[in-house]
This record gives sequence, C-alpha cells and structure tokens, in this order.
Amino acid sequence: MKVKEIMDKDFIFVSPDQGLVEVSIKMEKYRKFTTPVVDNDMRLVGWITSLDVTRGLREKLSTVADIMHSKEDIVHVMEDDPARMAVLETSHNKLVSIPVLGHDDVVRGVVRSFDIVDTLSQLYEIKVSKIFEAMELELKGVSWEELMEASAIITRRRTGKRIKPQEYEHNIKNSTFGEAIWATGGLEKFFVGLIAIGELVIARKIARARK
Amino acid sequence: MKVKEIMDKDFIFVSPDQGLVEVSIKMEKYRKFTTPVVDNDMRLVGWITSLDVTRGLREKLSTVADIMHSKEDIVHVMEDDPARMAVLETSHNKLVSIPVLGHDDVVRGVVRSFDIVDTLSQLYEIKVSKIFEAMELELKGVSWEELMEASAIITRRRTGKRIKPQEYEHNIKNSTFGEAIWATGGLEKFFVGLIAIGELVIARKIARARK
Repeated sequence: MKVKEIMDKDFIFVSPDQGLVEVSIKMEKYRKFTTPVVDNDMRLVGWITSLDVTRGLREKLSTVADIMHSKEDIVHVMEDDPARMAVLETSHNKLVSIPVLGHDDVVRGVVRSFDIVDTLSQLYEIKVSKIFEAMELELKGVSWEELMEASAIITRRRTGKRIKPQEYEHNIKNSTFGEAIWATGGLEKFFVGLIAIGELVIARKIARARK
Repeated sequence: MKVKEIMDKDFIFVSPDQGLVEVSIKMEKYRKFTTPVVDNDMRLVGWITSLDVTRGLREKLSTVADIMHSKEDIVHVMEDDPARMAVLETSHNKLVSIPVLGHDDVVRGVVRSFDIVDTLSQLYEIKVSKIFEAMELELKGVSWEELMEASAIITRRRTGKRIKPQEYEHNIKNSTFGEAIWATGGLEKFFVGLIAIGELVIARKIARARK
C-alpha cells in the first residue's frame, strides 16, 4: 500500500500572501486544523496550523507568510512512499496530518491521522471466523465441525477451560481479530494457537487416510 | 485493552469563564488543537477546538462559554470502555481527539488519534520471522530448516516463483507483518499461506515418524 492510497485528495491550501482573517474563515469552513501553503504552481512552500492562526490573530499579524513554518521545518512524505512511512511519521512525531508531495514538490494530498486509524483498524475488525473459514478452505478434507472440535480440544489443553465446539464457534463469530490478539496475549500467541489447531486436524486427517 | 491504557493523562483543560486570549496562549503553548472544558469539580461541560478559538478571536467574543460545544454535542468515551470504542469513534467521526470520562463525568484523559496510530501500528510492525519462530517452538520435532524449506516449496506452488529457503528466511527477517499482509493480499490469505506451510511440515513429520 502506498501513501497515495490513504491520503485525502480533497484538501484545502493557501498562499503565503493570503490574509489571516480570510484563511481562518476557510479553515473553519472546511474544519481543517492544518493546511499546506503553496506557490502558484502548487509546490509546497510551508505549512500552517490553526494554532499558528490564533497566534497571528492575537498578535495582529497580517498574512500567512508571517506565521507559516517553512517547508524545511516540517515533515512531508511522497505519494509513492510506502503507507507505512506516513504511519511511522504520524506516531513518532505525534502529528494530526502530513502533506504529501508528488513530482517537483507539488502537493498531491494530505495524510490525516484519523484516516490512518481507519485503515489500520480494518485489520483489527476482521472477524476471527473469517480466518477459520479460510483455514477450512485450505485444509482439503477437513470439515468445519472437525475444526471446531479440534479448537475446543486445544483451548482446553492450553487454558484448562472446558468449552463446547458450538460455544467456540459462537465466540469466533462474535469476536474480532483485535479482540482475539488482546485476549490471547499477542499476535504470535494467537498464531501458535491456530497452528496447534491445524496440527491436530491434520494429524487426524492423516490418521483417517491410513485406515 | 481499555481506553485508559491508551489515553493521554497529561492533558490541558479550561473553564467556561476563561478569556479567549488566555486560552489561545495556553493551547499554543501546549500545542493542543482541542481541549475539554470543565467545571470546578473537573466534570466535562464542553469542548473547544483551536478553530473555535480563531472564530472567537475574529468575532471579538470574550470567553470559552461563547464558543464551546456543549457536552451533549460531542463524542466522549469512558475510561473503562474497550480501546476499540475510541478507535471506532475516531475513524467514523474523523476526530483528532476524544475526551475520556471516569465516574461522575470527571475528565480523566484525552485519546488522541496519533496515539491510536502508535498503538495499532505496533501490530503491523512485528517482524514476520517472529511468527515463524513461534511456529517452530509449537511444532515439536520440526526444525527451522525444515520450516524454511517447506515455506520455499509453498511459495513456489502458490506464486510459481522459485525461491531458495535462505532467501525466504532473509525475506521474513526483513519484512513486517503489515508488509506481509499487503503483499499477500490480506490477513486471511497470509494465514492460509502459513497453514499450508504448517500442513506440509506436519505431513512430513508424520511420514518420518512412520518409517
């Protein structure tokens, strides 16, 4: 996934010579806490936040140029960078948004932290049952019932808790990957549980084939 | 994981009767785009953003009460809510921060979108080799070399691409879970690949035991 796939292309922008009153109205209208400052060719020259604007209004400054951070002082990413880059910049620098540049430093979009949250959380929101369905499809000759039975057995071996296959099925249909990871204590542990289930059903399948 | 584990406890707050100039200076000093408005008992009564402050300064309004959104009009979460709730509110409502309440509506913290990005991205940043190490530990009697060999075979079967076990090992040591999911086309596909690898090594292990 690239930065351009997660960036907001519908962004606002301002020019260095625009007046602060006009700019404040624009930012309020579009509800943007930040905006790129561009030249006549849409090239990035700076960046302002609504906090810079409050300071400008309070100190009776007049234009964007009076309050902006220059391009060199801010974080930006390129549209063809891996999306991961924008994620790391956001979390390391605690940013709410980052300008995205294309060829010749032209502003192509803005990556916003809540859009990143949206993208990242999709993984966490996948239902655990989807993973079991994929497992059933992959393991030819293993039925859904056998998979649930093996899962109940593995759960009992690992946690000591007796659980019926039907309850297990109910649980995975109602829980998300994110919840499962938090419940099992991490991604690796969650995988290991799945592998243990896989090992059991495969061993049973092979034993059956030998009969 | 609960909301209180991901919230920022070191937040700023203002009262309804505070002057806008004073508040704007405070928000700029602490670099906060938003802040809860509280009563004398730290109970949430409203919420302001730096965009509300720019409007207030521009329209010569005087206090926080003149610009604030009332508690009923904003999203909040409780400190004991699942962290997932704050994640969903952030992405659905495109928020940069959400106030967190405890008992009696007392403000206990603020959840910020970049902190959520930080928490969520940790999962994506786990090295793929960690998952294989967990797999090796789980599958007693299967060596790391056998695992890499099976992985190379499965990769060839699925993608048609010839890859040496050593190259496969190099790849998983250098790629993250997030990259692997994006490369394989989704969480389920990634899992299915692992299960296929597991199935192969388990079948080989059982065949070996029968000799």
